[in-house]
Amino acid sequence: MSSALRVVSFGLGPIGLAAARLALQKTSIQLVGAIDVDPAKVGKDLGELLELGRSTGVLVESNAEAALQRLKPDAILHCTSSFMPMVKDQLLLAARCGVNVVSSTEELLVPDFQNPAIAKELDEAAKAGGVSILGTGVNPGYAMDFVAAVASAVTFDVRSVKCIRVVDAGTRRLPLQRKVGAGITTSEFQQQMATGKFGHIGMRESVALLAKALDFKVDRIDQTVEPVIAPEDYKTPFLTVKEGQVAGIRNHGYGYVGKQTVLHLDLAMYVGAPDPRDEILLDSTPPIHLKFLGGIAGDQATAAILVNNLHGVVAAQPGLRTVLDVAPPRLCR
Amino acid sequence: MSSALRVVSFGLGPIGLAAARLALQKTSIQLVGAIDVDPAKVGKDLGELLELGRSTGVLVESNAEAALQRLKPDAILHCTSSFMPMVKDQLLLAARCGVNVVSSTEELLVPDFQNPAIAKELDEAAKAGGVSILGTGVNPGYAMDFVAAVASAVTFDVRSVKCIRVVDAGTRRLPLQRKVGAGITTSEFQQQMATGKFGHIGMRESVALLAKALDFKVDRIDQTVEPVIAPEDYKTPFLTVKEGQVAGIRNHGYGYVGKQTVLHLDLAMYVGAPDPRDEILLDSTPPIHLKFLGGIAGDQATAAILVNNLHGVVAAQPGLRTVLDVAPPRLCR
Repeated sequence: MSSALRVVSFGLGPIGLAAARLALQKTSIQLVGAIDVDPAKVGKDLGELLELGRSTGVLVESNAEAALQRLKPDAILHCTSSFMPMVKDQLLLAARCGVNVVSSTEELLVPDFQNPAIAKELDEAAKAGGVSILGTGVNPGYAMDFVAAVASAVTFDVRSVKCIRVVDAGTRRLPLQRKVGAGITTSEFQQQMATGKFGHIGMRESVALLAKALDFKVDRIDQTVEPVIAPEDYKTPFLTVKEGQVAGIRNHGYGYVGKQTVLHLDLAMYVGAPDPRDEILLDSTPPIHLKFLGGIAGDQATAAILVNNLHGVVAAQPGLRTVLDVAPPRLCR
Repeated sequence: MSSALRVVSFGLGPIGLAAARLALQKTSIQLVGAIDVDPAKVGKDLGELLELGRSTGVLVESNAEAALQRLKPDAILHCTSSFMPMVKDQLLLAARCGVNVVSSTEELLVPDFQNPAIAKELDEAAKAGGVSILGTGVNPGYAMDFVAAVASAVTFDVRSVKCIRVVDAGTRRLPLQRKVGAGITTSEFQQQMATGKFGHIGMRESVALLAKALDFKVDRIDQTVEPVIAPEDYKTPFLTVKEGQVAGIRNHGYGYVGKQTVLHLDLAMYVGAPDPRDEILLDSTPPIHLKFLGGIAGDQATAAILVNNLHGVVAAQPGLRTVLDVAPPRLCR
């Protein structure tokens, strides 16, 4: 690498901050700016927000356009929302400013799946700006979809795929424990579900990505979400789940060809979940059975994969890309 | 896919034939020609060589230049030799004819590692011809290198890598059993080793690819090869190994930074090897422990990954590429 990539952090929620923290440690990346609209963050040094005990010289600013035009970075680390309609203007701005994008927006993983019109607009803008835009992450984006796609490379044929991800939420940060509903009642769980913003976001995207990757002509993509009930009291460092309360969620995703289930993704995230792992089974020739023992650590891994994709996105051909058509992600230093 | 890729098989040894057989089954690929210099094969229909019980209309021809100029395929499936100096002219010809290349040539995996001058010439020719050239395979190319690189994408930092591949040669084809020395004596093994054409080819390439992928500044790449001695008589469908004879090989590859081993690849291929598997351990933050239970089936997987890379290579930016900078491989139909 001849010179470091100049990168701006756009969005400083938990994932954005974790990615910024990691980017600051990379010699091949220079973090030159930070954007967030939260008044509690604007004007502060990133070092303060990250509790680094030192200043970084990077002050959080709220005007994205002014920041991108002044700094002219190679890329942004974009972590503002899960939903394409919410991030469309931010990404169009980046394209207009000639800035490449690595985004944690779950819906961007398969941009034309839920938002084909926005996808088309983003693709045209990215090509016009000579930049590439990529949505990625660990789940969706890697553990239950991309890894299975890469595993299929050594097969003649794949008839069906099963991906299992088991996360012991009890070993994770408090926001994740809350996200999966640990410690609430089943009726609260149902109320939360009705909001549509609860639980794991991206299961349908994982199924859609796998269908695209393995060229399954799926007729229907479906999911179920149900609470996992604690069989006994369980204490995490942050909270206590009582017997009979919700311990977390079980989220299944399905892709069907006719009446046949060709894709089945099974995600369990609850406190006390035994045998945490990521497991992929291809009913294929030859068969493939792959396991990440202990599982892929969600929060750290998500920050990592965003940062580790920066060089690949800058090198990619312009346009709205997916993880299937940029260079394979790998560690950057 | 709008229309099928037009592909020519170049080299019809065991791997080339297996890849051709698979290509014939793909609807997104049209096998339009076959090239080999073996007089026993020239003029024959590929269906006869593959014992398909039907003719394919593809006759084996020996004049590569005439074939490529007449057929103008999108890509060749290139399986002629492990060594770059042996394939250089074949690949320059392809580039001159505007034909993309997926090659099983082990040394092409990291083209500038052992043959920087040839690599430069091939890269320039590929760019001039508007095509891309890719060396890939399962070992080297996937099981002990590429998969570890992709696994590193979900980490902050990797301090060292260990890859373990255990193949029970007793379940594999006879040429592989011969390749690993099953049934010969230890002194025959040493004689064979001295020829330099024995055992596994590509261990140094795997180490070099991993060093490049994870940006380890290795000072030295080394390997050891030793026979595994049969502790008791062992019968395969093809041969018998007597107690005290060679059952196969153990091949270690090492990458050093100073005196520290940062990359360790451990390959065991012998008849009767217990617990066949591919296993990857990253000493990383967070740590990664990945396992293909039962292992990746070498012969089938190699044919598969060659064929499955054809679409990606045609779509790639022109030049001499590596598996690190083309789209991630995945099943094609």
